[in-house]
Amino acid sequence: MMAVKDSLDVLQGRWKLPILLSLRYGNKRFMEISREVNGITDKVLSKELKELEMNQLITRTIHATFPPTVEYAITDHGNSLDNVISALRDWGLQHRKQIIGK
Amino acid sequence: MMAVKDSLDVLQGRWKLPILLSLRYGNKRFMEISREVNGITDKVLSKELKELEMNQLITRTIHATFPPTVEYAITDHGNSLDNVISALRDWGLQHRKQIIGK
Repeated sequence: MMAVKDSLDVLQGRWKLPILLSLRYGNKRFMEISREVNGITDKVLSKELKELEMNQLITRTIHATFPPTVEYAITDHGNSLDNVISALRDWGLQHRKQIIGK
Repeated sequence: MMAVKDSLDVLQGRWKLPILLSLRYGNKRFMEISREVNGITDKVLSKELKELEMNQLITRTIHATFPPTVEYAITDHGNSLDNVISALRDWGLQHRKQIIGK
């Protein structure tokens, strides 16, 4: 049960998984993520990215260009959420049928 | 992604899954759940039970005893969260290793 709670704590909120999914097919800059994740404010995105980085689900790299550019990438550990995401997706579809189908 | 969000919305917070797990091995009365789910207040438990009932994950039955007794039970739909719970558990264990193991 402790492990289940750990997972939920890490994924808490409505934004973590959408952000991770947006990084799944390539590294992105802040504004690119902001555009892909519908409805998130920059302030919240910034906070969420910090938490994801702290949990080693993403990395933040500063490139020595001029001006410097910052790029976010998903880690192997972030990609290891695949099973969790598909279990949540399957159950979400089933739940929708259960609730709306009646 | 919508389906993933649906699932997370339904499971939101730290209490829903512990409550469901406590009902997994038998129907229970309010105070029995309250004792099993460490740290939850009666006010929050009451709110969480209502939300779980609304989402058809549990049922609430009033027995015509004197005084009336109320019993909570997990539904088939509630039990269908098994895959989600084990995916979260597996990932939680892995996450713990990743974060603490370094």
